[in-house]
Parts: sequence; structure tokens; C-alpha cells
Amino acid sequence: MTYEGEYLYDPRLLNNLDWDSVRGWLNPHITCTEPGESWLLVRPLQLSDYSKGFLEILTQLTAVGNVSYADFERQYRNMHKSGGYYVTVIEDTRTNTIIGAASLISEFKFIHGCGLRARLEDVVVNNTYRGKQLGKLIVVTVTLLARRLGCYKMTLDCKDHLIPFYKAIGYKLEPGNANSMTIRFDETPKIATPS
Amino acid sequence: MTYEGEYLYDPRLLNNLDWDSVRGWLNPHITCTEPGESWLLVRPLQLSDYSKGFLEILTQLTAVGNVSYADFERQYRNMHKSGGYYVTVIEDTRTNTIIGAASLISEFKFIHGCGLRARLEDVVVNNTYRGKQLGKLIVVTVTLLARRLGCYKMTLDCKDHLIPFYKAIGYKLEPGNANSMTIRFDETPKIATPS
Ligand SMILES: CC(C)(COP(=O)(O)OP(=O)(O)OC[C@H]1O[C@@H](n2cnc3c(N)ncnc32)[C@H](O)[C@@H]1OP(=O)(O)O)[C@@H](O)C(=O)NCCC(=O)NCCS
Ligand SMILES: CC(C)(COP(=O)(O)OP(=O)(O)OC[C@H]1O[C@@H](n2cnc3c(N)ncnc32)[C@H](O)[C@@H]1OP(=O)(O)O)[C@@H](O)C(=O)NCCC(=O)NCCS
Repeated sequence: MTYEGEYLYDPRLLNNLDWDSVRGWLNPHITCTEPGESWLLVRPLQLSDYSKGFLEILTQLTAVGNVSYADFERQYRNMHKSGGYYVTVIEDTRTNTIIGAASLISEFKFIHGCGLRARLEDVVVNNTYRGKQLGKLIVVTVTLLARRLGCYKMTLDCKDHLIPFYKAIGYKLEPGNANSMTIRFDETPKIATPS
Repeated sequence: MTYEGEYLYDPRLLNNLDWDSVRGWLNPHITCTEPGESWLLVRPLQLSDYSKGFLEILTQLTAVGNVSYADFERQYRNMHKSGGYYVTVIEDTRTNTIIGAASLISEFKFIHGCGLRARLEDVVVNNTYRGKQLGKLIVVTVTLLARRLGCYKMTLDCKDHLIPFYKAIGYKLEPGNANSMTIRFDETPKIATPS
């Protein structure tokens, strides 16, 4: 396929998503191919995004740490080889900078007739670009992509204050079934320093 | 590798997990290699589990639908090729029947120093075998496996009534950050039938 090496996934998957089905969620109505400004570009992740600030915006979400280009490339290739990783970005083409990102990860299941299930991960918009619907735009983009791929559902984990943001674009807290639980392995036990 | 074709993942990964770190969680203390009864076997999924009732126990969890052997094999191979799918089962070797299952799915991240993150999925114990610690056993097994693989955290989504079950084996509802939200694509809109 011609996109390989150039993009993490086939960019044609972002054409002709069913934006009519979400009319009203974005106001004014923008889409990933018509994002409202000529200098906004929604597309799959590329290796060159390492030098376009992709990791820098992720630091607004959580700890990223020191990631060399070799580390980044290795993980990009792991994702590409594995399949199911739809890391999507918004670029400001005036400055060649990544200003937003969201990932759709698909998962093979045996349940639901050997179905495909989707997850939303690592959503972020650069703080100087917030409040302009770009968060909604990138999340709705990957949500419509999940539907296009034939997923039966898409889920996300989020902090309390973001519930209204996701509710406005179709996500629900299902009554009695909305708990996300976590076990962390990276917490090295704190050893009291002798005083 | 010699396990390929035989198991979904290398069964040696289940040897020497750090069961000492979870002492007290299972009472009496059982492990995946010493599950308390000689006829209990904890191991990776195999293709032959199609005829050992693997899909039948999943129906106790959710809808499975009609899955032919060809469907099952295709999905098994998708998982094997993709990597990161650690579907684990408990077999009753007296009857050659699958009586429990849980899946660890690992996910490549750019955050956390290009880290690896884990998810717990599709946990079930056959209803005639419940209340004997087998649920805890299979979940702790894949949780220790995630740690062994170097994951920085493992998460799960669950119904309200299962919170105590998971709390007893180390999972937490992190304050302000324990929400799981869902969008479903398989709900065909109900069209009113003309009366
Ligand atoms: C969450 C985030 C992606 C939203 O991006 P954004 O471009 O500002 O969002 P939008 O402009 O599309 O906002 C859409 C709506 O959500 C609301 N909203 C956005 N961020 C919100 C927040 N942190 N808390 C509450 N509401 C929020 C906006 O007020 C807006 O509402 P409106 O349409 O009724 O005016 C962005 O705030 C961000 O990157 N935050 C830091 C990283 C993060 O927390 N990611 C999510 C992890 S689950
Ligand atoms: C959840 C499930 C796997 C537990 O299996 P199990 O073998 O009965 O569990 P265990 O014997 O290891 O139980 C351990 C503890 O959890 C408790 N527990 C188990 N199932 C529970 C339930 N449904 N509600 C509340 N507590 C429960 C038990 O009382 C036991 O407590 P104790 O050790 O203090 O006596 C099993 O009930 C099941 O398959 N349920 C249907 C499928 C399902 O709901 N899966 C989870 C989706 S998130």
C-alpha cells in the first residue's frame, strides 16, 4: 500500500466518514476534511511528527519522559506492525506544529461474534488552541472512524471534569457499569530515608 | 518458537510469576502453577479450546453469537499475529472443559517513555465453579503477567457489584479518575412499526 512508511495508517480512511450522523455536535459544523480553517490538517501520525512537537503536546496530558527519535520510531513501527493503532493528529500547517491528538485502538474479541471493539486514548489539544472545538473534532473523527471499521462499541476512561465534554459528543456513563479500576506497577515503594 | 501453533502465547510466561507479592490475597494461597487441585490447569488459550467449551463460558459474560470454528480460528490467528493478546484459561482436565478465562491485552504507548499498558478483559468463571477463588486466581495470574511484561499499569472496566471482588486483589477506583464512558454503534435505531 502506498501510504506505508508515510503514515501510521491509511489516510484515505478519514475520507467520507459519516459526519451527517453527528450534525449538531459541532457548532459551526466542521469535519476532519473541512476543519474550518485552511491551515488546519487532520491526518494519521507520521514519523516526522517527532520533530513537529507531537511528544511535547502529550506532556500536557501526562508524563512522557525522555523519548529519543530511535525510541519513537521503534514504538511507531511496533504499532504499525501490530495493526489497530489509529493515532490521529491535528497539524497547524502555518507552523508545522502538532496541536492536537487522539488515538483509536481496536481490539479483536471472541465475544459479539468475534467482533472488533474500540478504545479512545490519549486525547489532547495544545492549551493555546483550546475552546475552538478542536478537542471535539479530533474525538469525533476517531469515533466515526471506529464505526467505519465496524467496531460494535468504543469506550474511554476519563476524569470527572471531562464527563460533560464527552457527553456532548455521544459518550455515556452506563448506569451500574461505568467503573474504571486501576492497578499501578510503576510505584516503587517509598523507602524512608534514615534521618 | 516451539509454542507457536500450540498456544496463543508462550506458556513459559506463566512460570515463576511473583506470587509472593500477592500473599494474603488468595486464602488458601494458590498459584497458577499450583492451583490447589491436581485436575486444574491454568494455561494460554489453544485452538482446541473451541471444542472444550471456551465460547460457551463466554456466554455467561455477554452475547457471543454464532461463531464457527473458522471464525474462531481466524480471530485466534489475528490475535497471535498482532501480538499483545494473552487470553488465559482454566481447564478442568477431568472433563477437558474450560471453566474459567481472563484476557490481558497489552497496548503500546508513546507516553510514559514509550511504555506498555495493560488491560483486563473478559473475565468469567463457569457458574458451577464459582466461589472457589478461581476468579481471583485467573485475574491475579494475568495481573502478575502484566507486571512481568513490564507494563506500568493495568486497568479494567466493571459493573458496580464487582468492585469489591477487584478491590480484594489490588485494583483501585482512583478518586476523580474512575469513569468509563461508552458509545455503542450496534444499536440500530428502532423504527416504529406502523399500526
Ligand atoms: C479535553 C481537551 C482535549 C478539550 O479540548 P478543547 O479543544 O478545548 O475542546 P473543545 O473546544 O472541543 O470543547 C468542547 C466543549 O467541552 C468543554 N470542555 C473542554 N475542556 C473541558 C474541561 N477540561 N472541563 C470541562 N469542560 C471542558 C468546552 O467548554 C466545550 O463546551 P461547549 O462546546 O459547550 O462550549 C483539552 O482540554 C485538553 O487537551 N486537556 C488536557 C488533556 C486531557 O485532559 N485530556 C483528556 C484525558 S481523558
Ligand atoms: C466475577 C467472577 C469471575 C468471580 O468468579 P469466582 O470464581 O466466583 O470468584 P472468587 O471465588 O475468586 O471470589 C472472590 C471473592 O469475590 C467475591 N465475588 C465474586 N463474585 C462476586 C460478585 N458477582 N459480586 C460480589 N462479590 C463477588 C466472592 O464473594 C469472593 O469474596 P471472598 O473471597 O471475600 O469470599 C464470576 O462471578 C463470574 O464469572 N461472573 C460472571 C461474569 C462477569 O461478571 N465477569 C466480570 C465482568 S467485569
